[in-house]
Amino acid sequence: MTIELLDLDHVGIAVEDLEAAVEHYRRTLGVEPAHRERVQDQGVEEVLFAAGSSFIQLLGALGPDTPVGRHLAKRGPGVHHVAYRVADVAAALEHLRAEGVRLIDQAPRPGSRNTLIAFVHPEGMGGVLVELVQER
Amino acid sequence: MTIELLDLDHVGIAVEDLEAAVEHYRRTLGVEPAHRERVQDQGVEEVLFAAGSSFIQLLGALGPDTPVGRHLAKRGPGVHHVAYRVADVAAALEHLRAEGVRLIDQAPRPGSRNTLIAFVHPEGMGGVLVELVQER
Repeated sequence: MTIELLDLDHVGIAVEDLEAAVEHYRRTLGVEPAHRERVQDQGVEEVLFAAGSSFIQLLGALGPDTPVGRHLAKRGPGVHHVAYRVADVAAALEHLRAEGVRLIDQAPRPGSRNTLIAFVHPEGMGGVLVELVQER
Repeated sequence: MTIELLDLDHVGIAVEDLEAAVEHYRRTLGVEPAHRERVQDQGVEEVLFAAGSSFIQLLGALGPDTPVGRHLAKRGPGVHHVAYRVADVAAALEHLRAEGVRLIDQAPRPGSRNTLIAFVHPEGMGGVLVELVQER
């Protein structure tokens, strides 16, 4: 199995106040929200802005005991993860597993925007929490 | 003045050992280096991999007393900055200044790949060090 990297899908940015951050991005970068979704099982509400063929993803925590909430408490606001768009998440996971890379998700699962996603452990990617995204 | 955001240009990732990281990205993401450049006045050697219309930028410090060296000492390896491709860096800086955003560079300066760049202070962008990139 191999990995087919198509694009930088998005950069996920943890913010303290989602509505204030959305307004700040609108004003400073001149972008308009393209998508908003509450992903209850990940404890996050996200707002996406298009930037060419990629997205900027602002992430607001639904509570302190969520992945983004813990990230904010530990590291403060800033980049939470980097997402790569791949042709096939399942094939990519198999490739990474064969390369000995530590995974968070052993199999693809549904993401926002009707995508398939999986997370790779930051230990396996030089301190960067990596998400793989497959569009359907 | 306004800002015209064209694309996510790259994600800059600080690494401890540039050659080991390049090899790791080749093996795990199946990408080949598209560009390598030593930017002496920024104290950094960078390697770029194409990901669609964007890049992954690995950053190796040329010494501990450099921006990337200090980032590694303080926060460890991981995402160093996010770069947005804009139509006109000078116009973008003027827009951000008018919006009261704290800048690092007050005027565009030459970047790698014969680009024009400017950095925006992380305080002005929710903890994210932002680079603006204009292709020439």
